Amino acid sequence: MTDIAMIRAAASRLRGNIRETPLLNAPLLDRLAGRRVFVKAECLQLTGSFKARGGWSAVSALPEDARKRGVIAFSSGNHAQGVAYAAACHGAPCVILMPSDAPEVKIANTRAYGAEVVLYDRATQDRDAIGAALAADRGLTLIRPYDDPQVIAGQGTAGLEIAAQAAAAGITRAEVLVCCGGGGLAAGIALALEADAPGLTVRTAEPEGFDDMARSLASGMRQPNPAATGSICDAILTPTPGILTLPILQRLAGPGLAVTDDQALQAMALAFTHLRIVLEPGGAVALAAALFAPGLPDTVIAVATGGNVDPAIFATALERFA
Amino acid sequence: MTDIAMIRAAASRLRGNIRETPLLNAPLLDRLAGRRVFVKAECLQLTGSFKARGGWSAVSALPEDARKRGVIAFSSGNHAQGVAYAAACHGAPCVILMPSDAPEVKIANTRAYGAEVVLYDRATQDRDAIGAALAADRGLTLIRPYDDPQVIAGQGTAGLEIAAQAAAAGITRAEVLVCCGGGGLAAGIALALEADAPGLTVRTAEPEGFDDMARSLASGMRQPNPAATGSICDAILTPTPGILTLPILQRLAGPGLAVTDDQALQAMALAFTHLRIVLEPGGAVALAAALFAPGLPDTVIAVATGGNVDPAIFATALERFA
Repeated sequence: MTDIAMIRAAASRLRGNIRETPLLNAPLLDRLAGRRVFVKAECLQLTGSFKARGGWSAVSALPEDARKRGVIAFSSGNHAQGVAYAAACHGAPCVILMPSDAPEVKIANTRAYGAEVVLYDRATQDRDAIGAALAADRGLTLIRPYDDPQVIAGQGTAGLEIAAQAAAAGITRAEVLVCCGGGGLAAGIALALEADAPGLTVRTAEPEGFDDMARSLASGMRQPNPAATGSICDAILTPTPGILTLPILQRLAGPGLAVTDDQALQAMALAFTHLRIVLEPGGAVALAAALFAPGLPDTVIAVATGGNVDPAIFATALERFA
Repeated sequence: MTDIAMIRAAASRLRGNIRETPLLNAPLLDRLAGRRVFVKAECLQLTGSFKARGGWSAVSALPEDARKRGVIAFSSGNHAQGVAYAAACHGAPCVILMPSDAPEVKIANTRAYGAEVVLYDRATQDRDAIGAALAADRGLTLIRPYDDPQVIAGQGTAGLEIAAQAAAAGITRAEVLVCCGGGGLAAGIALALEADAPGLTVRTAEPEGFDDMARSLASGMRQPNPAATGSICDAILTPTPGILTLPILQRLAGPGLAVTDDQALQAMALAFTHLRIVLEPGGAVALAAALFAPGLPDTVIAVATGGNVDPAIFATALERFA
């Protein structure tokens, strides 16, 4: 299981390879929010999301022979790019299994990072079976998006940075809102803050209708989402919390938050205007919660998890809310 | 005259008040450019541009009694917001003289930073006369946008950061491309690099048709632009180089570069896609030069100077080039 020692070890491996992202704020945004809002800008991370941390951590933790055989991941989005980038930097072969109807640009970007993209037909083919056959055939190691101790440790390095940056800014008590899919980032940050900034408490942020983590935290049992699609926040529409992540968050996180798609779009527009960063909808839900959720404290830190957004969706956010 | 000691003193005053902005890069952007491109993201600076550095430096350098009487600036853009923010943080009264046809949002933002905005009619009123009368009446100190030694020193703090960040990234030789209006930022950075990173050379970047600095550097004499408007790069359409800035750049800078408006828009779109930052056209010309200008070396650092952009112009850049 991931612990603070694993997170610190991951931070050593990541140093100089993964960007330390800035903690941004804007006086005019604070005024709109009615509280101090700091934004951990993981959209500025290499590959455009925090997933590069977990990918780097997992690939760099592999034994030399396993790394030489290579890695495999299932993802059409940020995890694919994070793993592909990390593998390329380590000279490790990398296979990414993507649905054949994935956006062309995501396929192209994943290939540009050096990965071999294997397409499958969602309707007629079994992804897990194809992946298992490929992995067995070539001796590839599967890198899971969140239910992997070294991935959680890598994501936790963002929490070490938040702890240090908050201390430098004089922040000793705050809620740290984290966009949440399977919960790998939130769990990693929670472990890091427990050790380095115990006055900072993680709360997950999800899209309304897809708040499986919030309901799981409330009930103490892994709850599924009723549907697999139906929100623009595609990056964080996981079916259910992770097996490894939920117990960590049950112990350390506050109640989960949820926001509407329109609030996510509005947060994207406000981040454009006041912070000059590009967020994707799923990367903006924590900022949306920081701006619009009731009952938050005077100081919140929102983790802006990713910025890989379709230009048309970004333009819609600007047209409607900027 | 500004020297490295003044820049270091400004850096001490700015510490903890002005953001150290990150040096970003993206492997896929390097591939497009055919060279290594690093971006000093001053769009992430407080107030959305590097102007907060010069504003803070100038206001903080004033004697106590002058600061209490207050400051005045002429600007409808980034300098207004930089000075207004710095003045508010120092408890100094601040008057910003703006044309009455300035965009409503810029007037509102400048007021939101706490400044008193005085509007004048461009067609019938004399800005300098109104400013001089106000300054005399209230004992205000005029903060010039670039021809002020303390403003140049403040902008030069970005150069100290570039020197340190380049060293940390192992960059010992590079051209540093700087978006250039009056030349305050370019001159300040050039002085800082001369002291801390002599292998790094400044080159100015301007809009085609408004390359007064490039022509002045080539001729050794201050050259005017033929027109005051006619490019979307409004932030850097100054009539002619500064009196203080040109000699510094003549001594330290390479030949000036110029890019088209379309190249600036394309750089905005590529910064959106690959770096997830928001740039205004005038803040993107250095990146445009880094991507599209001929004859550049293997490694360039582009200073992305500002991100205060009209959403409609940003949407146009995305629609045409993303």
